[in-house]
Amino acid sequence: MDAIETIHKRRSIRNYESRPVSKEMIKTLLKAAASAPTAANCQPWEFIVVDDAEKLEELKQKFVFARYNAPLAIVVCGNMKLAFKGPSRDMWIQDCSAATQNILIAATGMGLGSVWIGVYPVESNVEKVRGIFKIPEQVIPLGIVYVGYPAEIKEARSRLNEKRVYWQEYDPDRKHRAKDKPENGHY
Amino acid sequence: MDAIETIHKRRSIRNYESRPVSKEMIKTLLKAAASAPTAANCQPWEFIVVDDAEKLEELKQKFVFARYNAPLAIVVCGNMKLAFKGPSRDMWIQDCSAATQNILIAATGMGLGSVWIGVYPVESNVEKVRGIFKIPEQVIPLGIVYVGYPAEIKEARSRLNEKRVYWQEYDPDRKHRAKDKPENGHY
Repeated sequence: MDAIETIHKRRSIRNYESRPVSKEMIKTLLKAAASAPTAANCQPWEFIVVDDAEKLEELKQKFVFARYNAPLAIVVCGNMKLAFKGPSRDMWIQDCSAATQNILIAATGMGLGSVWIGVYPVESNVEKVRGIFKIPEQVIPLGIVYVGYPAEIKEARSRLNEKRVYWQEYDPDRKHRAKDKPENGHY
Repeated sequence: MDAIETIHKRRSIRNYESRPVSKEMIKTLLKAAASAPTAANCQPWEFIVVDDAEKLEELKQKFVFARYNAPLAIVVCGNMKLAFKGPSRDMWIQDCSAATQNILIAATGMGLGSVWIGVYPVESNVEKVRGIFKIPEQVIPLGIVYVGYPAEIKEARSRLNEKRVYWQEYDPDRKHRAKDKPENGHY
């Protein structure tokens, strides 16, 4: 599928078929993740692939935001030993977010559904996920991507709001308001 | 171009032809950006499109990391009035990073080159970019994407390192080292 079409087709899928995602597909997802840009080539990312039914059940039971029935989860982490030192350290968040977005697009491109569950920076989420996957202190779980064959269909879409686009310079007189009622759920 | 092929073909392009990027292509890039997932549907992003030669020259002169000769820059910002309140606030970084990655992939899909210049979280960078584009206090420039027709060719690639992939759980005994000599430049 064409890249731009795939970008619009990527939607958060929260209901999955039970059939597994093949090892070959998993490798394609990870290769896509590792093709993301990364500040000064730090490549601070690490990935925990979870396709064991018991472990997935444990995740669902212990972490309320991860309550979906996908047969595959990929925990995207940043390793602080690999990240920038000093004031640029937190660029690991951008690198790992770009890697996560690549996983979502690659999944969509293969006919799979996906949903990004935010973990960091909410400390209680981070500690919960750390415990489930035995993640040490210097590694931070940014988010969890669920992947699987979709059991729901969502239309492709874009949500470009022209009010959020400026030309040449910002216009501080333009007023913005948070949407009154955002959709439920993370992502 | 196929989405996964496009993901691998996206490389940081630092040398551009002078011909402009059309308004229609710019709109396609922004629509791709706004198709990114966003925590609780906050859509905290704003975009400053810069295609004025004088403004681009000012950016190049005042911000050393933005020294490339692209005919188009898109400043990706997070608006704190639109972001989550409370401990999830900084999820705007992940949302805006996903939007940025979509711009890069869409550009690649259209035969354009791009490079992501990190701005946030380095305070001196943020202040410089704020000054150039008159960005108010409640809006934070995350990064700048340069886009244009590439004047250099780079091979598609992935950098998946199997040492960074775990199954079911993290293995704290596996040792990682930062690369001894990362490539120069941001992204």
